[in-house]
Amino acid sequence: MTLLYLLDLLGTIAFAISGALAGVKKDMDLYGISVLSLVTAVGGGTIRDLLVGRIPPFIFRDYNYIVLSLLSALIVFFFYRKVERGYNTLLIMDALGLGVFTVIGVKVGIDYNIGYIGSIFMGVMTGTVGGMIRDILQGEIPLVLKKEVYASASIIGGVVFLILFKSIGESYLTIITAILVVFLLRLLAIRKNWNLPKPRI
Amino acid sequence: MTLLYLLDLLGTIAFAISGALAGVKKDMDLYGISVLSLVTAVGGGTIRDLLVGRIPPFIFRDYNYIVLSLLSALIVFFFYRKVERGYNTLLIMDALGLGVFTVIGVKVGIDYNIGYIGSIFMGVMTGTVGGMIRDILQGEIPLVLKKEVYASASIIGGVVFLILFKSIGESYLTIITAILVVFLLRLLAIRKNWNLPKPRI
Amino acid sequence: MTLLYLLDLLGTIAFAISGALAGVKKDMDLYGISVLSLVTAVGGGTIRDLLVGRIPPFIFRDYNYIVLSLLSALIVFFFYRKVERGYNTLLIMDALGLGVFTVIGVKVGIDYNIGYIGSIFMGVMTGTVGGMIRDILQGEIPLVLKKEVYASASIIGGVVFLILFKSIGESYLTIITAILVVFLLRLLAIRKNWNLPKPRI
Repeated sequence: MTLLYLLDLLGTIAFAISGALAGVKKDMDLYGISVLSLVTAVGGGTIRDLLVGRIPPFIFRDYNYIVLSLLSALIVFFFYRKVERGYNTLLIMDALGLGVFTVIGVKVGIDYNIGYIGSIFMGVMTGTVGGMIRDILQGEIPLVLKKEVYASASIIGGVVFLILFKSIGESYLTIITAILVVFLLRLLAIRKNWNLPKPRI
Repeated sequence: MTLLYLLDLLGTIAFAISGALAGVKKDMDLYGISVLSLVTAVGGGTIRDLLVGRIPPFIFRDYNYIVLSLLSALIVFFFYRKVERGYNTLLIMDALGLGVFTVIGVKVGIDYNIGYIGSIFMGVMTGTVGGMIRDILQGEIPLVLKKEVYASASIIGGVVFLILFKSIGESYLTIITAILVVFLLRLLAIRKNWNLPKPRI
Repeated sequence: MTLLYLLDLLGTIAFAISGALAGVKKDMDLYGISVLSLVTAVGGGTIRDLLVGRIPPFIFRDYNYIVLSLLSALIVFFFYRKVERGYNTLLIMDALGLGVFTVIGVKVGIDYNIGYIGSIFMGVMTGTVGGMIRDILQGEIPLVLKKEVYASASIIGGVVFLILFKSIGESYLTIITAILVVFLLRLLAIRKNWNLPKPRI
C-alpha cells in the first residue's frame, strides 16, 4: 500500500531526526549521531520483527529505512541550527510517525497470529522502543516512561485499528482512522500538556 | 506440570511488583510503571526464548504472564504504601521466583539442546535479566552486578537441577529440590548479608 | 579457517579483559565482572546472529568463547594490577580484535544474503555493540558514540573486505588485508589522537 509506505518513510525521517538531535545535544560525533538516528528510527520495528520471527528484520529487506535514517543524521549534522528551529514541524511529523508505526506494528502482529494483546503490544513497541533506546544511549531514563501522553496515544490507536480491522477489514478507512486517532491524540496531548496520572505516595 | 506453573505465576507477580515499585520510586507515570513491571517479570524469559529460537516467545503463547504483570502494576499504582509495607513478603516471593525462573530456564535450555553451560546460562538469564533491564531503565547500574548473592544462587540451583536431571530425570523431586536450593540460598544470603568477593585493587 | 579462528579467540580475550576491567572500576563483584566480560566479548556477535536468524547464536555452538571470556574475568579478578599495567598491550589486542570481529561479521552478513549495507552493518555491530552494552551496564554513555576513530575503522575495513571479496574471493589475502586495515587505522587513531568531527552548534 503506497500511501502507508510513504507515511512510514516520513515517520522514519522524523524519528531519525529526533535521534540525531539527541546525539548532538550529548556531544556525540558523526558516528554517534548516526547510530542514535538509526536506533530511534528503526529500533522498535527491528525488535518487533525479532519477536515475531520475521527474519531478517525489515531494515535488511528494504534499505530505504537505513539510508533515510543516515541521510537525516547528515542533515542534522550540517544544518543543526535550522533543524532545531523547525522543532514544531518535527513534533507534528513525530506524531504522524507514531501513528504510522503503531498501525504497521499492529498489522505485523495480526499477520503473525500473536493474538489481540500481542498485536497491540507490537504496535506500541514499534512506536516507542526506538525512542527508549535513544534515551538509554543518551544516559537518560526514557521520557516515555515518565510523562506526556505518548505510548497511551499509540495504545488507543492500536485498539481502534483492531476494532475496525475486525469489523470492516484492512481498508484505507481502517488504516487512516487509526493513524489519525494517534496523531490527533498526540497533538492534543502536546497542546493541552496532558500527562498520565502518577501514584499518590 | 501444574505446581511449577502456579509457582511460575507467583514468581511473575513478585518480579512484576518489584519492577512497579522501582517505577514509582523513579517518578514514573502509569505507563512507565506498567513497562517496568512487564520487563522485570518477563524480560529474562523473552530474551532466553529469542536466543534458543522459541518464536514467538512464551509471553505471546500464554497471556497470563502479561495480564498478571499489568495487574501487579495496577495494584502497586493504587496501593503503593501497603505493598511497600509488605516488603519482606515480597523478598520471599522474589526468592521463590528466582528459583522457579531458574529451573524453567534450564529446562528450556535442555529442551533446545544447547548443552550444559548453555542451559545454566538460560536459567540464570531467565532469573536475572529482567531485573537488569529494570535497573537500566531506572538509570542505574544493575544491582545484581554489584552485590548480594543473587545470580550465584541461581547458578548453583541450575547446576543442582542439571545433576539431578541427569541422574533421576525430570521428576517433581528434581524440580522442587533445585527450586529450594535457590530459594534457601537466597534467603540465607539476605539474612546473613552475604556478598560475592570483589577484587583487591 | 584456523588462523582466523585463533585471531578470533585472541580478540575475544582482549574484549573480555576490557569488560572485566570496566567491571572492577565500577566496584562490581565477581559475578558482575564476569557478566561485563562476557557481554563485551560476545554481545555484538550474539545480537548479529539473532538478526540474521543464526539460531542458536555462535556462543552456544562453540563454548570456547564463553569459557575464554570467563577465564579472562578470573584473570582480571586475581591479577588486576598486572593486567592494568599491560594496558598498551591490551589496546593492541583490542585493535586486532576489532579487525577480526569486523571481518567475521561481514562474512556472516554475506553468508546470510543480507546485502552489502547489511553486511557492513553486521561487521560494525560485531565489533562495537559488545562494548556499547558494557558501557551501558556501567551507567555510561557508550564511548564509541562520542570520540575516537573506532567504529569508523571497522566500517572502512568492512568496505575493504567486501571489495576484495567481490574481486578476488574469500582468500587469505582478502581476510588478512581487511583485518590489517582496521588494525592499522585503529592504532594510528590512538597514536595520532584522531577523532571524528562533531557538528558546529
